Amino acid sequence: MGAIVRVGVIGAGRIGKIHIENLCYRVPNVEVVAVADIALEETRGWVKQFGITNVVADPMQIIEDETIDAVLICSPTDLHAEQIIATAKAGKDIFCEKPIANDIQKTKAALRAVEEAGVKLQLGFNRRFDPNFKRVRELVENGDVGELHLVKITSRDPAPPPISYVKVSGGIFMDMTIHDFDMARYLAGGEVTEVYAHGEVLIDPEIGKVGDYDSAVTILKFDNRVTCVIDNSRQAAYGYDQRVEVFGSKGSAVAHNKKPTDVEVSTEHAVSTDKPLYFFLERYMESFARELQDFFKALASGQEPPVTGHDGLQSLYIATAATKSAKENRPVPITEVL
Amino acid sequence: MGAIVRVGVIGAGRIGKIHIENLCYRVPNVEVVAVADIALEETRGWVKQFGITNVVADPMQIIEDETIDAVLICSPTDLHAEQIIATAKAGKDIFCEKPIANDIQKTKAALRAVEEAGVKLQLGFNRRFDPNFKRVRELVENGDVGELHLVKITSRDPAPPPISYVKVSGGIFMDMTIHDFDMARYLAGGEVTEVYAHGEVLIDPEIGKVGDYDSAVTILKFDNRVTCVIDNSRQAAYGYDQRVEVFGSKGSAVAHNKKPTDVEVSTEHAVSTDKPLYFFLERYMESFARELQDFFKALASGQEPPVTGHDGLQSLYIATAATKSAKENRPVPITEVL
Amino acid sequence: MGAIVRVGVIGAGRIGKIHIENLCYRVPNVEVVAVADIALEETRGWVKQFGITNVVADPMQIIEDETIDAVLICSPTDLHAEQIIATAKAGKDIFCEKPIANDIQKTKAALRAVEEAGVKLQLGFNRRFDPNFKRVRELVENGDVGELHLVKITSRDPAPPPISYVKVSGGIFMDMTIHDFDMARYLAGGEVTEVYAHGEVLIDPEIGKVGDYDSAVTILKFDNRVTCVIDNSRQAAYGYDQRVEVFGSKGSAVAHNKKPTDVEVSTEHAVSTDKPLYFFLERYMESFARELQDFFKALASGQEPPVTGHDGLQSLYIATAATKSAKENRPVPITEVL
Amino acid sequence: MGAIVRVGVIGAGRIGKIHIENLCYRVPNVEVVAVADIALEETRGWVKQFGITNVVADPMQIIEDETIDAVLICSPTDLHAEQIIATAKAGKDIFCEKPIANDIQKTKAALRAVEEAGVKLQLGFNRRFDPNFKRVRELVENGDVGELHLVKITSRDPAPPPISYVKVSGGIFMDMTIHDFDMARYLAGGEVTEVYAHGEVLIDPEIGKVGDYDSAVTILKFDNRVTCVIDNSRQAAYGYDQRVEVFGSKGSAVAHNKKPTDVEVSTEHAVSTDKPLYFFLERYMESFARELQDFFKALASGQEPPVTGHDGLQSLYIATAATKSAKENRPVPITEVL
Repeated sequence: MGAIVRVGVIGAGRIGKIHIENLCYRVPNVEVVAVADIALEETRGWVKQFGITNVVADPMQIIEDETIDAVLICSPTDLHAEQIIATAKAGKDIFCEKPIANDIQKTKAALRAVEEAGVKLQLGFNRRFDPNFKRVRELVENGDVGELHLVKITSRDPAPPPISYVKVSGGIFMDMTIHDFDMARYLAGGEVTEVYAHGEVLIDPEIGKVGDYDSAVTILKFDNRVTCVIDNSRQAAYGYDQRVEVFGSKGSAVAHNKKPTDVEVSTEHAVSTDKPLYFFLERYMESFARELQDFFKALASGQEPPVTGHDGLQSLYIATAATKSAKENRPVPITEVL
Repeated sequence: MGAIVRVGVIGAGRIGKIHIENLCYRVPNVEVVAVADIALEETRGWVKQFGITNVVADPMQIIEDETIDAVLICSPTDLHAEQIIATAKAGKDIFCEKPIANDIQKTKAALRAVEEAGVKLQLGFNRRFDPNFKRVRELVENGDVGELHLVKITSRDPAPPPISYVKVSGGIFMDMTIHDFDMARYLAGGEVTEVYAHGEVLIDPEIGKVGDYDSAVTILKFDNRVTCVIDNSRQAAYGYDQRVEVFGSKGSAVAHNKKPTDVEVSTEHAVSTDKPLYFFLERYMESFARELQDFFKALASGQEPPVTGHDGLQSLYIATAATKSAKENRPVPITEVL
Repeated sequence: MGAIVRVGVIGAGRIGKIHIENLCYRVPNVEVVAVADIALEETRGWVKQFGITNVVADPMQIIEDETIDAVLICSPTDLHAEQIIATAKAGKDIFCEKPIANDIQKTKAALRAVEEAGVKLQLGFNRRFDPNFKRVRELVENGDVGELHLVKITSRDPAPPPISYVKVSGGIFMDMTIHDFDMARYLAGGEVTEVYAHGEVLIDPEIGKVGDYDSAVTILKFDNRVTCVIDNSRQAAYGYDQRVEVFGSKGSAVAHNKKPTDVEVSTEHAVSTDKPLYFFLERYMESFARELQDFFKALASGQEPPVTGHDGLQSLYIATAATKSAKENRPVPITEVL
Repeated sequence: MGAIVRVGVIGAGRIGKIHIENLCYRVPNVEVVAVADIALEETRGWVKQFGITNVVADPMQIIEDETIDAVLICSPTDLHAEQIIATAKAGKDIFCEKPIANDIQKTKAALRAVEEAGVKLQLGFNRRFDPNFKRVRELVENGDVGELHLVKITSRDPAPPPISYVKVSGGIFMDMTIHDFDMARYLAGGEVTEVYAHGEVLIDPEIGKVGDYDSAVTILKFDNRVTCVIDNSRQAAYGYDQRVEVFGSKGSAVAHNKKPTDVEVSTEHAVSTDKPLYFFLERYMESFARELQDFFKALASGQEPPVTGHDGLQSLYIATAATKSAKENRPVPITEVL
């Protein structure tokens, strides 16, 4: 067993709570020594069950705490960049929820700070750690599907977010498809050179009124000649639809949806099974734990984390190009948005 | 192309009609030259579409017709044995619907006549020709599942037959499970030495009143140490359930139900697919054609047909032992009923 | 039973032979009275099994035969248009293999002749008659998936055609994706307004040398705001991959591949099943029979055939736009190619 | 949050370790305050990661510790009965691994002690807590499959236990099928009245030499007229095979095997997926946690635990009857062994 890493967590909202629970129960050699959240009382009550007593309102108390080795940034997106910069300057390793920012310049500034400080930064693209998708990636890497030709991603949410969120999220390509862009890069093993995206408003006209889409199809062209097709919807009646397919010269691999049980019921009406696991908390429960395990393994071994700031920047480029492509109805070379 | 075989069909009921249609459309080098049925007018009207004009009421007109090479016996079961004997004496090859008779002595008499006349006899155990089950048998034969240990058969009808039929059928083991006994022998590649059967009346008390069961579980022990378990029900709410599984030292093979389409529908209620094909006419349509193709291939090549009188007799032994076992609640050695 | 329709078949190559066999065995009230093929002797030998004796070398002998009611055109594509025009002028109903022509003007001329003559014309887009795809269409029509948002089509061949064919076929969008364009229109229930296509040469550089692609992804935008994504490959290692998915406000429906058997084999290596049915002859065997049954039903009832010249023309427009889009890397409005 | 329950664990072998880890990470309001194991040093090293420091060699130190509220008995089977009696006398609630004993009288004595002391006892029939099987039970309870007719259980291990274990385990029905007997009672919702079992030695002759079987088929008849069929093998080449099926008047429900991923790979050889999860540690990981959660919930609420000593005794009766049935080749009424 190695030394214990002392961790501070900034933000104890929905995703922050998941990370804290995983840090306490599923990541070895780690201790959560402080949590920052403006909801001081509620957070204090909640963290008590894990034996955590140090709860502060100001994130800087964590960033500047010399006894803390690593910081998890789970605050609202618009604070990520500045907190990354501050934490990097304080010489601490960082796990930050995606995205770093919806703005390319801010993102670059944060990455520069990380590089200058020589600290590690991992981004929360948790889907890479899903056992299904990881298996597909392994099949590609091992050459089991031969030379890769095509990546197909289906990504549909069970329900759209509130309009208030859509207004500030940067749009569907920035708040939703960005996960799929990262998955596409992960599976394709290359970099995107051009994006063509088509968006529609088919679910809620309010989404259209604030200038966004609720349905989209995107084609990515990679420098290794792989093509990727992504279809998104903000609302699937049957729940969270998260499938990938890779196709190459030797065959294909398809990751189907995960379901609560594998029970098949036959009645006079039909043969039926469970619907997919409802949403990301259910579906990616395992991957949230695994991304943290791998982050702290990387810190312990001194290796680069499995998802870096570079990955965050690339996905942001693609999302920016996709947004432009959908608005202007033309394929957009990635060089246009760098 | 070989010479045309001239065929007479005795009985143009439901199964007779299927055979006539298959003879005309799916069996090469065969001509149906006469059909016998007491419903003369109806039969004449129906066969016209195939260009058949010779319809007679008396089966002996077919049996004694010297221009006819082979006879299909599709009459009621209680006429099978005597018609086999007459046809064998007339020197014609015979395809007969199963069973030869519900009585062992009658069956043996028919088989003796076949043997003495040196004609070929194939029994209509059509399920052996189902592509799914044939594939399972091949996997056993090729050694893909290793040394065979277990055969499991699920066989459930969508609805019970009329009580009038149950009264004279010889009971569930004789009218329904007998198909599964043949399938068990086909898959196991051995002979049954002992039978233990358990019957229940769970669907219709009327079935119990006439001394039969509507639900049954049967264990067969084979001379090659394979064990077979069969579960039957006269009524499955979701339709015809016909599955087999074999298990051996190297693995297993499972034949699932066949469905009208392979379409999977996801809604807010469930993920569902079609129910199984409704009943034997739908499920075994292909196997009805293939059993005739193989019968006439055997005639042409002079080889033994793929399902013989021996197979009919063995299944009858097993059905007799199963009936006895269920009544007396004890394992019955097959030697008791020979 | 209605009157017998007297049919002449032009071309007894691979697809012609399938149609002749289906006409003889699976389509009621139809008689094949003449077959035209330049391979006179071979064709005579082959059709004998169906009792057909009238084989001619010159198609005009069929087109001008006054005793013939309907003509099946199964000749090479470059003869379709002129033979349609001649047959229409002769007042006969027509079933023609797709496409009418690779040229829009020729196609329009043929359709004009059909309209002027007032005869019926059905095109051989057989996939519409596949039970799987028909079921998906029904689910859309019945509103089971709600308002339709997305159609996804996967269409991959087991092996590329010979280069000699690729040279004259008009390219992948014209010879292969055209089937998918028809399927897209069939499932979407609308007309295409814009096409964006991306092609790659990943399988055989020779295909690239003659100016074609062997891999493609196409996005179709419909006038009812449905989006369709099609992915094609000329070579899938595991065989013929033919799947469709529809997604709408109430859910989705997916048609999986069809396989020879439904047997699942478990060994120490994996749990595995059959590969998909090898190619179109195996996969679409049933749909070839059904398209002819429906054509002659339409003739008998005086109704419009289920796939018309209009359908052929629309698919040709889409294929033309897709070819242009792939070359010029931009979305092409369908109005550009009308 | 309720009061903290102080727990002592007797036995820190394979299953004891799983329980300790689950108690620490997945069961709320519980504290492991002492662990007893003769491997003192090894256990001390292992439990340190959970902050447990009190490790003792003598179980009585736990049983007699007045600060301990509940005891988990994870010692070898032959110690269960006496430890239950001692713990009950000490007034502590008990979670005990199955079986209580292979001997009916010893088991009854232990249950008497529990009853007299008025403490709670839960047995470790963990499979009842598997989400798949629980769902099947719910479908039965809710009436979704109608009146229950049949329960089918497939239960095959990836590899046989060592011969040394087989010699003392009481035989396949006592060490392996006993889990399935409990599952059968759980799913059927009734009590067994008669057992017919057939055993074979097909995998390892050594198993036969010590008087046991390695393959078995068992029929259970229930007082509510449900029939249950169980097939067992000590060695499935493809791993741990754990499936159940229920069939009733309204339909059926089938729980398939669980696999590491849901990825389907298609190559020129086959379409294949993962094998089932390897063995009980992988497959029932979740159910081990849930059985403890439910045990401590029952303690907190004062309700009867979900699996009681009665359940242990019934399974023991059935296993005894099955062993007798297989030896004597006759159906054995459960009344013979009470």
